[in-house]
Amino acid sequence: MAGRSKSLDGLFRPRSVAVVGASRRQGAIGRQVVANLVEAGFEGPVYAVNPKTKVVHSMPTYASIGRIPGPVDLAVLVVPAVDVLRVAEACGRKGVKGLVVITAGFREIGGEGVTREKRLLAIARRYGMRVIGPNCMGVINTDPAFSLSASFSATYPSPGAVAMVSQSGALGEAILADATASGIGVSMFASVGNRVDVTAADLIEYWEHDDHVKVILLYIESFGDPAHFVEVARRVTRHKAIIAVKAGRSEAGAAAASSHTGSIAGADIAADTMLAQCGVLRVESLRKMFALAAALLHQPVPKGARIAVVTNAGGPGILATDALSGCGLEMAEFAEATTAALVKALPAEASVQNPVDLIASADADRYRASVGPVIRDKGVDALIVLFVSPIMIDAAAVAQAIVDEVQGTGKPVLAVVMGRSRGDEALEILRRAGIVVYRYPEDAAATMHMLVERGRMLRRKPGKRPRFNVRAQGPRTALRGAKAGWLDSRRAEALLAAYGIPFAKSIRVKEPGDAATAAHEIGFPVVLKAEASDLLHKSDLHAVVTGLHTGDEVFAAAKELLKRLRRRFPDVTLQVQQRAPGHREVLLGMKRDPRYGPLFVAGLGGVQVEVLRDFAVRVGPIDDRSPAEMFESLQGAALLQAFRGDPAADLAAASEVLLRLQQLVDDHPRIAEAEINPFILAAPGQPSVAVDARVRLSE
Amino acid sequence: MAGRSKSLDGLFRPRSVAVVGASRRQGAIGRQVVANLVEAGFEGPVYAVNPKTKVVHSMPTYASIGRIPGPVDLAVLVVPAVDVLRVAEACGRKGVKGLVVITAGFREIGGEGVTREKRLLAIARRYGMRVIGPNCMGVINTDPAFSLSASFSATYPSPGAVAMVSQSGALGEAILADATASGIGVSMFASVGNRVDVTAADLIEYWEHDDHVKVILLYIESFGDPAHFVEVARRVTRHKAIIAVKAGRSEAGAAAASSHTGSIAGADIAADTMLAQCGVLRVESLRKMFALAAALLHQPVPKGARIAVVTNAGGPGILATDALSGCGLEMAEFAEATTAALVKALPAEASVQNPVDLIASADADRYRASVGPVIRDKGVDALIVLFVSPIMIDAAAVAQAIVDEVQGTGKPVLAVVMGRSRGDEALEILRRAGIVVYRYPEDAAATMHMLVERGRMLRRKPGKRPRFNVRAQGPRTALRGAKAGWLDSRRAEALLAAYGIPFAKSIRVKEPGDAATAAHEIGFPVVLKAEASDLLHKSDLHAVVTGLHTGDEVFAAAKELLKRLRRRFPDVTLQVQQRAPGHREVLLGMKRDPRYGPLFVAGLGGVQVEVLRDFAVRVGPIDDRSPAEMFESLQGAALLQAFRGDPAADLAAASEVLLRLQQLVDDHPRIAEAEINPFILAAPGQPSVAVDARVRLSE
Repeated sequence: MAGRSKSLDGLFRPRSVAVVGASRRQGAIGRQVVANLVEAGFEGPVYAVNPKTKVVHSMPTYASIGRIPGPVDLAVLVVPAVDVLRVAEACGRKGVKGLVVITAGFREIGGEGVTREKRLLAIARRYGMRVIGPNCMGVINTDPAFSLSASFSATYPSPGAVAMVSQSGALGEAILADATASGIGVSMFASVGNRVDVTAADLIEYWEHDDHVKVILLYIESFGDPAHFVEVARRVTRHKAIIAVKAGRSEAGAAAASSHTGSIAGADIAADTMLAQCGVLRVESLRKMFALAAALLHQPVPKGARIAVVTNAGGPGILATDALSGCGLEMAEFAEATTAALVKALPAEASVQNPVDLIASADADRYRASVGPVIRDKGVDALIVLFVSPIMIDAAAVAQAIVDEVQGTGKPVLAVVMGRSRGDEALEILRRAGIVVYRYPEDAAATMHMLVERGRMLRRKPGKRPRFNVRAQGPRTALRGAKAGWLDSRRAEALLAAYGIPFAKSIRVKEPGDAATAAHEIGFPVVLKAEASDLLHKSDLHAVVTGLHTGDEVFAAAKELLKRLRRRFPDVTLQVQQRAPGHREVLLGMKRDPRYGPLFVAGLGGVQVEVLRDFAVRVGPIDDRSPAEMFESLQGAALLQAFRGDPAADLAAASEVLLRLQQLVDDHPRIAEAEINPFILAAPGQPSVAVDARVRLSE
Repeated sequence: MAGRSKSLDGLFRPRSVAVVGASRRQGAIGRQVVANLVEAGFEGPVYAVNPKTKVVHSMPTYASIGRIPGPVDLAVLVVPAVDVLRVAEACGRKGVKGLVVITAGFREIGGEGVTREKRLLAIARRYGMRVIGPNCMGVINTDPAFSLSASFSATYPSPGAVAMVSQSGALGEAILADATASGIGVSMFASVGNRVDVTAADLIEYWEHDDHVKVILLYIESFGDPAHFVEVARRVTRHKAIIAVKAGRSEAGAAAASSHTGSIAGADIAADTMLAQCGVLRVESLRKMFALAAALLHQPVPKGARIAVVTNAGGPGILATDALSGCGLEMAEFAEATTAALVKALPAEASVQNPVDLIASADADRYRASVGPVIRDKGVDALIVLFVSPIMIDAAAVAQAIVDEVQGTGKPVLAVVMGRSRGDEALEILRRAGIVVYRYPEDAAATMHMLVERGRMLRRKPGKRPRFNVRAQGPRTALRGAKAGWLDSRRAEALLAAYGIPFAKSIRVKEPGDAATAAHEIGFPVVLKAEASDLLHKSDLHAVVTGLHTGDEVFAAAKELLKRLRRRFPDVTLQVQQRAPGHREVLLGMKRDPRYGPLFVAGLGGVQVEVLRDFAVRVGPIDDRSPAEMFESLQGAALLQAFRGDPAADLAAASEVLLRLQQLVDDHPRIAEAEINPFILAAPGQPSVAVDARVRLSE
């Protein structure tokens, strides 16, 4: 792996660069790339390659890469698509280490483009070259030792501690421009295009131990190799923050992502949970990405979610409070000593509660006397300080007072400065001290939310993966000869039961008389279900009769079921089942995604899950902390807790079932899908049991 | 009303202004107000009043308002709080028509401040003066006939078509500064402070027929007189858009709003529904307010929610699609002719589906050939056009092509321009044509969402308020002597039943034997409930036994209930109730708010409503379209529709109950709270019935 990532040096740290397809024409990409390399001040030689012209951008040209006298580390290809393979081959022969293929006309156009892309990769592999692109905007490295702009970006960013990957070339341009406008310096940048070779994950790995890079920003539309991404990101986010804008969040957006990049966008829900599981901070807009990057570069991560707000204007204080609450953060409650200090320092009209309102007459002294006690309060994890600059107040003195008081506290502070004095000395004083300044309270609140999330992620202790003793032989035998498709209920249950998943007691019969007998054996009340090979959605067909209290009722219900369903389902039989003693229903399941592997699902069970679609998803592997986190994240999580005199549901039982299910599907890769719905949860200590389950096998 | 609003002319269209408390001191508000009046170029005379100094800002001063030789229309008071009443009295005697009281130290400080504020109002009423403030920043009117800045705002906005009210002085300053920065011109501005007299509603009414004012912006923290606001806003929003940022959305924010303005912020849920009901567009941030204001000033409102996106960069197109879907808007589906035109005009790599991706090489011709067919498609209600300016494309030509194609279509168009060429000629061409340009896709999407909302509001036909024939005499008699507090179940049911609300058949008994007899009379299965005067939350105490199928079961359950509950509730009796035939449960209720009047509630019934808190609220009066809208807005709305083989619930029955409940509580103002939960809905045509209800009376 180390060798693999180091090999990107040919792309980002070349000693010489050739531009193949360099052009004289104003506005041509082949000219812009040459101009950018020269303008950025690349430290090594730049060779322009073009057999049809003698000079490009005042440089003598070479007829081919082979004709260049010295060695070439990096070649930027701007030739027509049909020439790319030939040129790549020549680059390989020349000993080029990195290719940036800007040319489009590969996988994204389908047909011959797909073939061409495959052949490009084969050539690169043969010669040990790493490739960025094709169909990309290029790479940038602002390190003064290189000053490399091997791209046609109109913006060359100022040096800084952020590294960025963009899967969209056009957006990459906008990202560079906006980063510069937001005052965020960039260390390295890559527009990865079709990612025939180098992916976002490769770049993250390359930047993992690069001390210039503090924060990594991603704009992605799909994952080339999710497993590799997860492995790398999970490791790197433990010490470097990664922020991602992943387009394709909505179904409509995902459809667009799929049509435009020529790759099938992974189901967004899997992408979302995957990013969260590996500690990547996902934001939905570039604005939020830059706002957050600035804070992560300069501020520590809070130890908790208790936020204090200090303001000199009530209105913005309320807007900040609203926005914080909207993100699920808490308003800190102050210790008595803090409140006492505020009472002493502030006039009667001020508010000493959080948000602390110093009122419009607040000067530097009043900020000093309030920000100090508040930030030092042990119940405060972070501070947002607002300042609407009134004409009669010395804004720079206020800024200095804030800076003095918060220094050395180790707690993050974000500032909001509104009104006329934006852009003046006060802003400069705050920024110099690393206090990021936002224009609106909601921007600061949204950023604080993500800082808190990052803190949570860093504090989260990894769980364990328990291994259960199971009867593995039965499933192995059962699956050996089984056909692909849905298993019948009996075999699905047997499979799950072999891995220790408990089921409600039940007896399968064929005739109404046997059903009544079975019911007496099980004990009343019972549930009666019809079963048949093609009968999947039982409740749609009223194939389940609940609350049967006598043998006569069972007999009558059985008769009716068989009569009604036999016509459509000739192999219909009956299952007489104990009424499960529990009081809450959940769904537990797994679906194998072709790209992400097993996705585990936990949600509210029974009818609700179908209609409300309230479920949590995790990309496997899950650990013993995962199921509880999944249940907590449900919208209707409260429905599993104690209420109205009923005890809480035994979520530990449900968690164990999900982990046992994971063991089952890991042991038996032919299981494509498994769903236990409902699993009926009792109070802790009482038996929780599954009453229905489905299992689907792949070929 | 006309006379009332016209009287604000003294505040906004004065012929002369006196500043009482004018000051020589640099940085003093009393100096800034004088300087602002002069600098803005007020058309009439400005008089500086200060008995202690001879000259302020190069103006000779007057010792008192009475000493001013000519008439004074507007007086701005910047004197200490203790002097305000005396000065106001003098202003009244002088014939002043409008007072702007900038001085703080009134209701917001409590105690003597409250008294002072009341006395200020009394003086104003006596002399027929209208008052803005106290504790405010002043008023502005940019109409060149007045050029009035009677405020200490550091910003004097450029003239324009927006009128603004801010309840926060400090934020008012920020709003003016940001409006100016956003290129939004302002007609009139008022910072209303404590609103002792002039409220936001008064100002809206004043601007109702003012042709200079096209869009009204509000920053509010609470409503002085909700009923007046509703009456005015409901009328004005039919022809002028009103956008509001109301702080105090969260519970924490509401607590802050209440402590800092000295007014008790109304429950935000009531404020939210009230604003929506009177057609006010509520946004959660100033950023969104300005983004929306710009669009409303220059673009028409869409006739539907089907949005098209045209882009030259896939990534931003996907981000726009994501943001639109996130707002609940639809991606338009193109007619065949449109798709054919796009196929013809675009290269193979482009996407002809919505979002249309012209790819990076798109020039003006390609924009022209795609924007035209798309905007003219009958299935497209509005367009967002994105442009990430690549170096080789003539951005100004692209902008001109967009402008040419969309003109005269009557459909709203918003633009997003990203990348380097922001601020250049292209932006100017778009803006001159009234096409608002945003920096990020999500800003355009959020704005489009509100434009669609405004379109919906304008198209919504007002419903009717049906009047039911009811037996009003019974309730009148019953309520005459009733004590305040919760009614017992029997009387609550009788009250509701008199207004035609159907209940499940039931019989009340005292002994187990009678319960069994009653059950036989009603027919099995039955439900048995314990009732007692203090027994409110029955299910918490397991005081309801369902699914009783035999007389023996009823007897046993009745015995157990009485034995268990009699100790704690000596007056416990029993209700034997028919099991309601329906299959879905809703809650229907009313709670009278001291400030907003009756709030009507509809939500999912039974256990869910308590735990998931999924309900919709409307401020009364509601009409016959309201209940259906309320049910549709529930998160779990799908639970009331047909699914899994069960028919939809009879929402018409539930709607009628809510309207009958409204008639009941309107007829009987002593009803403070009424709740029918659950109301069990059957399929349409089957009987839907209430099975439990509570009614609380006020004194």
